[in-house]
Amino acid sequence: MFTVNARSTSAPGAPFEAVVIERRDPGPGDVVIDIAFSGICHTDVSRARSEFGTTHYPLVPGHEIAGVVSKVGSDVTKFAVGDRVGVGCIVDSCRECDYCRAGLEPYCRKDHVRTYNSMGRDGRITLGGYSEKIVVDEGYVLRIPDAIPLDQAAPLLCAGITMYSPLRHWKAGPGSRIAIVGFGGLGHVGVAIARALGAHTTVFDLTMDKHDDAIRLGADDYRLSTDAGIFKEFEGAFELIVSTVPANLDYDLFLKMLALDGTFVQLGVPHNPVSLDVFSLFYNRRSLAGTLVGGIGETQEMLDFCAEHSIVAEIETVGADEIDSAYDRVAAGDVRYRMVLDVGTLATQR
Amino acid sequence: MFTVNARSTSAPGAPFEAVVIERRDPGPGDVVIDIAFSGICHTDVSRARSEFGTTHYPLVPGHEIAGVVSKVGSDVTKFAVGDRVGVGCIVDSCRECDYCRAGLEPYCRKDHVRTYNSMGRDGRITLGGYSEKIVVDEGYVLRIPDAIPLDQAAPLLCAGITMYSPLRHWKAGPGSRIAIVGFGGLGHVGVAIARALGAHTTVFDLTMDKHDDAIRLGADDYRLSTDAGIFKEFEGAFELIVSTVPANLDYDLFLKMLALDGTFVQLGVPHNPVSLDVFSLFYNRRSLAGTLVGGIGETQEMLDFCAEHSIVAEIETVGADEIDSAYDRVAAGDVRYRMVLDVGTLATQR
Repeated sequence: MFTVNARSTSAPGAPFEAVVIERRDPGPGDVVIDIAFSGICHTDVSRARSEFGTTHYPLVPGHEIAGVVSKVGSDVTKFAVGDRVGVGCIVDSCRECDYCRAGLEPYCRKDHVRTYNSMGRDGRITLGGYSEKIVVDEGYVLRIPDAIPLDQAAPLLCAGITMYSPLRHWKAGPGSRIAIVGFGGLGHVGVAIARALGAHTTVFDLTMDKHDDAIRLGADDYRLSTDAGIFKEFEGAFELIVSTVPANLDYDLFLKMLALDGTFVQLGVPHNPVSLDVFSLFYNRRSLAGTLVGGIGETQEMLDFCAEHSIVAEIETVGADEIDSAYDRVAAGDVRYRMVLDVGTLATQR
Repeated sequence: MFTVNARSTSAPGAPFEAVVIERRDPGPGDVVIDIAFSGICHTDVSRARSEFGTTHYPLVPGHEIAGVVSKVGSDVTKFAVGDRVGVGCIVDSCRECDYCRAGLEPYCRKDHVRTYNSMGRDGRITLGGYSEKIVVDEGYVLRIPDAIPLDQAAPLLCAGITMYSPLRHWKAGPGSRIAIVGFGGLGHVGVAIARALGAHTTVFDLTMDKHDDAIRLGADDYRLSTDAGIFKEFEGAFELIVSTVPANLDYDLFLKMLALDGTFVQLGVPHNPVSLDVFSLFYNRRSLAGTLVGGIGETQEMLDFCAEHSIVAEIETVGADEIDSAYDRVAAGDVRYRMVLDVGTLATQR
């Protein structure tokens, strides 16, 4: 056991405070990572505020982790000290079930272990990336290509793979027309990935403020989601609509924009049940689908794809004393386009 | 123009009455069909009672039509007088859009013309199979194989294709595990088709009354849908669940029975919006989908498949003076397993 500086919150709405947490001594298969940056995901805010009612306090969030390997266990073969690495949303799974063996660890039949707020194999609640070091089995560690700066790589570990996985699974590519609802942390990476995949991409957002950024990143069209005219104009237009917004939409309206056999994928977590008229599914044989984050292998593929296509997250770096204000801004949607905690400030700031 | 005997209802809940309706003189591409039988579908009851609020009265229902060709237009090439034929849910579509050209006429971009209660190309509301003759373009007429009696073929034109199309589209076959919710008009044909396709099929129904029939028709398992234990026992078990029931289910419970990438297909029309927790979709990357009836080509394929595998609808034949009581029994779910109107009784009964 060893200790590191971290930041935790102890109740819904309680400010983050400096704490010292314990990390396990690395086992034979473990990698010790000196964390450089940890992205601030909307899920962190929801968890910190216990919006899902399943938060274990004190909570150390952070599942968009980028850093450098500082120690490896005796059986580790994939990583060496000094390697640039990342950790995403999960740090363990059963490794034995058919889904794990197929590289779909988030869907593990015995349930995966999430990077924080999850019961680890040692019976302790996992603590995330708002901390100086983390110890992770090498099977759940990703290699960050040299072409991607660590700070801009961090958000790819959740936002990037959360977009990449459905875009690949539902076959966004040359000739396909897709829409991305919400141009924020997920949306801006999603647009860049969709462009690199060759899809024609339309963005729907609540404001026109980010229009120019979206076009610069590769969107072919950008429209106000509050414009009632879009639902007629784009009726039957898209093979795939991916909603990144953590809010309930008028699903009947959005589903009508799907072409034959089109799929609407909900990524953001709305606060209320999803409700829709079944006729919205009948016409054009439409589907409403959800997805968890991609598996480890697919996450590595995504990182390599992003390096190849010069895709990085657009970020604002914040220090340890700015987490609370950063959370307020994330909750308000006032971010371009991802906040990243500079973990190097944990030792010196409040 | 010529006239034929028919049965119509003039208001929600009004009894059926004998009427004389007009049929168009056959055009060059038309087939005149002497109707022998017309299945009574749950949709007929919903339409007659204007449960969707879109019924045009007087209404002549019937979209499970089986009969014999009595006349053909000069350009007709596929059919000759004396041929055994059927008509299903649609009688026209634009024939030009990409969906029509792909054989997916129900999804026609300009909307299809339904067999009854739909605006025809001549600007008149279509009238269905509760009538002695119907005139239909040959492109929307199906050939009924000799192996299938006309009365038992009629329900295949809607119930049969409504099951066959999603079972094929979502790839029910050897090695796949599927569930069918509701063992009625659709369900009993669906079980037989699923068996013939090679899928392992579990039936969920509100009662055990039809257990033996389901097993006889090819179900591998049959369970009470009211048994709360099924949701745990079958968690993650099925690649495909097809719900035939025109009622709202607890979608969160049923969705949990889907395996990775599984799809829940809703066929029946529930009276209230579909409501679900988005997490039910996230886990196992599940989809909730809808479908209309299959296209004309696929309907012919289904009829040929049924003939090859000795699949027929199990029916009760009713006369023209029994339509009202038949409707009450359909609404109550008291049918084994499809009522079929003997159109030969239209001229003599009340």
